Parts: sequence; structure tokens; C-alpha cells
Amino acid sequence: MIVVQKYGGSSVATTEKIAAVARRIAERAKKAQVVVVVSAMGDTTDELISMAKQLCPMPDDREMDKLLATGEQESSALLAMALHGIGQQAVSLTGGQAGIITEKVAQKARIRKVDGTRLIEELDKGNVVVVAGFQGITENASWADITTLGRGGSDTTAVALAAAIKADACEIYTDVDGIYNADPRVVPEAVKLDTISYEEMLELAGQGARVMHSRAVELGQIYDVEILVAHSARNVPGTLIKKEDPDMEIRNPVRGIAHDTDVTRFTLVAVPDKPGVAAKVFHAPAEAKINIDVIVQNMGADGCADLSFTIADADYEKALKVMEPVAKELNAKKLVVDQNVAKISIVGTGIRSHPGYADKMFSTLASEEINILSITTSEIRITCLIERDKAQQAVKALHKVFELEKV
Amino acid sequence: MIVVQKYGGSSVATTEKIAAVARRIAERAKKAQVVVVVSAMGDTTDELISMAKQLCPMPDDREMDKLLATGEQESSALLAMALHGIGQQAVSLTGGQAGIITEKVAQKARIRKVDGTRLIEELDKGNVVVVAGFQGITENASWADITTLGRGGSDTTAVALAAAIKADACEIYTDVDGIYNADPRVVPEAVKLDTISYEEMLELAGQGARVMHSRAVELGQIYDVEILVAHSARNVPGTLIKKEDPDMEIRNPVRGIAHDTDVTRFTLVAVPDKPGVAAKVFHAPAEAKINIDVIVQNMGADGCADLSFTIADADYEKALKVMEPVAKELNAKKLVVDQNVAKISIVGTGIRSHPGYADKMFSTLASEEINILSITTSEIRITCLIERDKAQQAVKALHKVFELEKV
Repeated sequence: MIVVQKYGGSSVATTEKIAAVARRIAERAKKAQVVVVVSAMGDTTDELISMAKQLCPMPDDREMDKLLATGEQESSALLAMALHGIGQQAVSLTGGQAGIITEKVAQKARIRKVDGTRLIEELDKGNVVVVAGFQGITENASWADITTLGRGGSDTTAVALAAAIKADACEIYTDVDGIYNADPRVVPEAVKLDTISYEEMLELAGQGARVMHSRAVELGQIYDVEILVAHSARNVPGTLIKKEDPDMEIRNPVRGIAHDTDVTRFTLVAVPDKPGVAAKVFHAPAEAKINIDVIVQNMGADGCADLSFTIADADYEKALKVMEPVAKELNAKKLVVDQNVAKISIVGTGIRSHPGYADKMFSTLASEEINILSITTSEIRITCLIERDKAQQAVKALHKVFELEKV
Repeated sequence: MIVVQKYGGSSVATTEKIAAVARRIAERAKKAQVVVVVSAMGDTTDELISMAKQLCPMPDDREMDKLLATGEQESSALLAMALHGIGQQAVSLTGGQAGIITEKVAQKARIRKVDGTRLIEELDKGNVVVVAGFQGITENASWADITTLGRGGSDTTAVALAAAIKADACEIYTDVDGIYNADPRVVPEAVKLDTISYEEMLELAGQGARVMHSRAVELGQIYDVEILVAHSARNVPGTLIKKEDPDMEIRNPVRGIAHDTDVTRFTLVAVPDKPGVAAKVFHAPAEAKINIDVIVQNMGADGCADLSFTIADADYEKALKVMEPVAKELNAKKLVVDQNVAKISIVGTGIRSHPGYADKMFSTLASEEINILSITTSEIRITCLIERDKAQQAVKALHKVFELEKV
């Protein structure tokens, strides 16, 4: 049996924590061949970024990748040493040594292929193989450039390796117990899910549930890798992300509630309602690599429309800079920016086949006197934009109405 | 014109110092193609070693190399960013990316070959190429292991790259002004040398002058790379290490005085004087990788001999552990360990052809009432072992007698 485990930065923040993780791994290695993917220790990445910015306001992407990749190279070597320290045979590999070849795009490279040959060789020698997460190289050559995989990169490494070597399990260890059907800090009654489908997990991740990054889940879905999310120190069962199975039909059709307060809304008021306007509006933020989320266009009476969209708070200044000229060019009446907004979503594959969930969601918000600013939906998700200070109240009310104490 | 420059860890200890080094490099890059070899920032290497030892008392050599190599990967990326920050085109390379292939021996790998292709390509694109010092890889493949070159490794990297790309100059920047003919902290009259031959530099380095490691000098000698040693921040001429030239005949035959107080002497008293004894004595420390220096065997009256040798202070405990069983096995009367010793050497190619230097050295020490414990010589060096607390007095007296204020 081959297991791929991933430990995040907070699980290996100190040498003591590395030693504790090593003991867990060694225990597991008694019964399975283990590949471990590890993130950089604690704040290492942030410290490296801070040094870089002292030297150059806009550090070069390639150099940044080469710099940041040292964090995982360091933690992987230290974890291998910690395993040696307790008598467990182990070897550490960089992303490149582990056969992870990416496209030639710095900072958020996608994996092109994984050559698991060395990984399998090392496992067959009896080693626990510790792989530096978050990184790859551009070619199978010593002079190849080092790339990093962007946000959620170490999770992606773990799932990609699991797929490449056809591992029997892929386990993401983190600082939460698993996936809850609402944020347990907001709803004490929130229930940890034993399983969740890839689709549902993707919708939850996209709508503010921060436990798993969408990219790793997508990869798991494509290569059919079941992903266990569990706590790195507690011995409690986590949540298994997997294909939807028939049993899912008899459970609560609403699988989870996500809320996201990291939202800023831009509205272009009274732009001419003619072909090409939307394209013009969204070209500039795309160029500036700003992720656009909820887009809503309202028809106006006089041949004009209001066009609004949301972005992450962090992109606010960048977005303002690119949108002001656009508003001018399109003769918009004004550009309104609203940071007092939040997204609330209900997610579940059951929503697709059970009508009436949208109605129930809207009427619940209405009875709580929460105003809905806009609405978007997918096949298995309904999202409302509401005022930010009402977010917690909305989550609690929806959790109750949809009886999420029952999973 | 191609120049290889090397900056040591203290020259890049902080982001401010990295920025200062970047300004010097950019200035130089106006007139030459520049390759820069850089060490890890300040205490980075020591900090990494300390973490490793917390996790494993005897860290694995391969993992240690992978860990330590991050230090230079980090500093090289940061220096490239600092160059970008002041508008200088630059790219950083790991040892492997720079084409440095070493033998498969961790911690003190020797360079097998250097493929300068990418280095030349990057220079021809107009880049300053910043190379991580002290490291290489075992093969030209992405899964190759990372190796480090051991003490003086970044100097070795610089000389090896200079040889491979036939650079016009190789410049080692450090925290001293150059090579002095005695330690200026001991002899204020010590004179900085404009030039010194490879042979003389090797003898001085071997006898306690810490500025340059022997290995880089040897490599320079083999590939005929002239090495400039100069201060990384001050604009003063340094010392050029080069082939001996005819002019050297008309200068002071004594080129320098080295002293080394980092010396422990072991003496096996009254061991049987028969074939194979010396081999037996030195086998154990060789196995334990302890460097043996001054070896002296004195004939005893009763078919027995006293055998003594010196080692670095740091190896004291390790040496005691291996020598005690040897002393027992050989029926030595006793094993005497003396840490109150120092080595004093005079070095100069002129010594070879000028008789009388040994006599002059011994009589000078005698007139200073300094007892000579033992003597060794090479063609261009005479070394005396003396009491440690007389070392400074000896250096001063010899500097005066050999008129080293004249170079």
C-alpha cells in the first residue's frame, strides 16, 4: 500500500513540530510505503518575500520562484533528518528530483507531467520519501529553471504525485479536523462531513471555504484520487473528498454553507447597453490578473445598464487603477466601490434535482431582514451577495432552515 | 572581457549589504561581462546546521547538502533581485544550473566538470550571472543529487567557473584587503603583497593564513587562473595570486610568515621502533577523517621511539578516542596530549635557492628564548612548533629579522 501525505507549513513550523510529524509518519510507515509532501516552515515564505521586496519593489517572477523554492527544500531535508533521528529510513527530494515537470510559467506554473520513477525506486529501497511541495522544474535537465505552483501548491503536489504513482491514499494534514458543512467558528452546530464530492468541494472552496484549494481538488477529480483532509496532530477521522456516490441521494441535499467576507464590489453605473461593453469592462482586470467573481448586469430604462462584479479585497487598489479609465472610456455615470459586502452560498449536488432551494434561501434571508444585493447560481450552488455585517446571521439562519445538523 | 567575482557570506549578510554589493557589480558590468559567485547570507549555514542537529545528532550527509545548498540559492536569487532593483539585467543560477557537476560524495564533493554553456548564453543576453557558490549536482539530470564542496567551497566555485569559461579575471572579495606577509593583527608592520605565487599561497594557507582556502588556490594553479583577493567594500588594490615570475627573484626571499595557534600535539612515548608502527599509528586518525599535520619521530635509546603529530584543536576529542586504543595496542609507555603549542612558518620560493634561512630562523627563536618543540620543512617553507603563548613574540621577531617590511 502506498500513501501520499501532505503536511502544511504550520505543522512543521518549528523543529519540535517537525519531530512530532516525523513520529506520526514513522508510525504509518510500519504498515505502508509513505510519500510525504511538505510545505515551508511556518513564516519562511513570507520572510523570503519580505527580503525580496526590500531589494526590488517588483521582484522578477523567475528569481522569486528560485528564492521561494528554498523554503520547501529546507523543510523537506529537515523532516528527512528528523525521520533518521528516530531510526526511520528516509530520503528527501526537491520537486525536480521527484519528477515534477511544469510549464515555463513562474509563480503559478501548472504541472505538465510527473515522472514517478525515482519516487518508486526510493520507496522500494524502504525509504519514506519526503518531497518538497509547491515546486517543480521546467525540464528534465540540470539547467532547468525552478518553478512554483502558486496558492495551494503543496496540496497540488500531493495529489499529482498520488495520481502519478497510483497511490492508494492521499492525505492532506492541516490545522482543522476536516470539512464542515458551515464555518464552525460561526455556527457551533456545524457538522464535520465524512465524505464530500469533488464537485461540492470545488463549489465550497470557490465560495470561501479555505481548507482546500480548488486546484488540488480539480486534479483529484480528473485523476480520480480520493483526498482525505484531516488534522495533523489530532487523531480524529477527517473528510474524504471523492466521487459522488448513490448513497448521497438519501442525505441532506444541502451539503454545506460557505460564506466569504473577503469581497469588494465594483459597479459601473449607467453604461451604454450595447454589444462589446462587457468585453471591454472585463478585459482590463483580466490583463491585471485580477480574479472576477459574481458578475451581475441590470437593465436600465434609458438604454443603459448597471454592471457590477466582485473581487477579493486584496485586489481593491489594483482594480480601482484599471477600472477608472474603463469607466471614463465607457461614459459610465459613475464607478461605485462597495466593501461592505459578503457572499453567502449553499452548495449540494442535491440542489440540482430538488427544486425550491433558491426560494427557501431567499425567503429565509428575507425573514431575517437581510437584503439581497445580487444572486448567482451554478447547477449545485446558490450564492447571494449581502451586507457584510449580516454574514454570520445569514449563515446561522440558513444552517437551521436547511437542517444542516443532519448531514 | 569576462570577470568572475566572488562575494563571501559577510559581504551579503543583510539586505543592505546585498544592495551595496549589487551597486559595485552594476558599476563593473558597465565595462565587462560579469559572473558573480555568492556565499550564503551571514550565519545562514550555521543556523541550518543547528536546526539539523536538533533533529538528528549525526545528520545524513546527503540531506545536509540538500539543506545547506538552500543558503546560496537564497542569496543568489536575492542578489539578482537587488541588481534588477537598480536596473541591471541579471539572472541567478544554482550550482547545477551553472553546469557544476561533482563526484557523488556529499559534504566535500570535488568538481568533476563544469559545462559553461548556460553561463555563456546568459552573459551573451546581457545578464550579470549570479551563481550560488559552494554547490554542484552529481549528474546532468533533474533527479541528480545536490552536493556541497566543503570548506572554501565558494572560492572553489569561482575559480572553477573562471577556468571553464576562460574568464579574463577571477576576483575573490572578502573582509580583508589582501594577503599580508604576516598577520597584521599581530605585526602592525606587516605589508600587503601585490602578488604572491600559487605555491607560496598554498604553503601560507596550509600553515594558518585563513584568507584563501588551499583548494581554490590549487585549482587556480592547475588551470592557470590568476586570483585577485581584495576587500569587498573598500576600493584598495588587493593581492594577485599567480604563477611565479622572474621578477620574484629580486625581492625578499621570505614572502610571508604564518602562525597557527589552532594546534594540538599528540605524542606516543616509547613505542617499539620497528617497521609498521607508523602505519599503525596513522591508520586510525585517517579512518576518522582527522587531518594530521607536523609528524616527528625521535629515536629512543632502548629500541623505542617517541612519535608525535599535530591536529586541529577541534579534532581533539575525536583523536583522543581513536588514539587511546592505538597507544594500548602498541604498548606505548604513555600518550601525551599538549594543547599549549603553535606553529610558526616562514614561506617563500626564495628559500629554496637561498641557504641559511633555517639557521637564521632557529637562532632568532633561540635569542628570544623560545624553545623549538619540533621542526618540519618543505622546499619553500620552514615550520617550527613552539609554545602557544610565544607565538606572537615569534612572529614579531621573525618579521623583523627577515626584514619583511621590505617585500
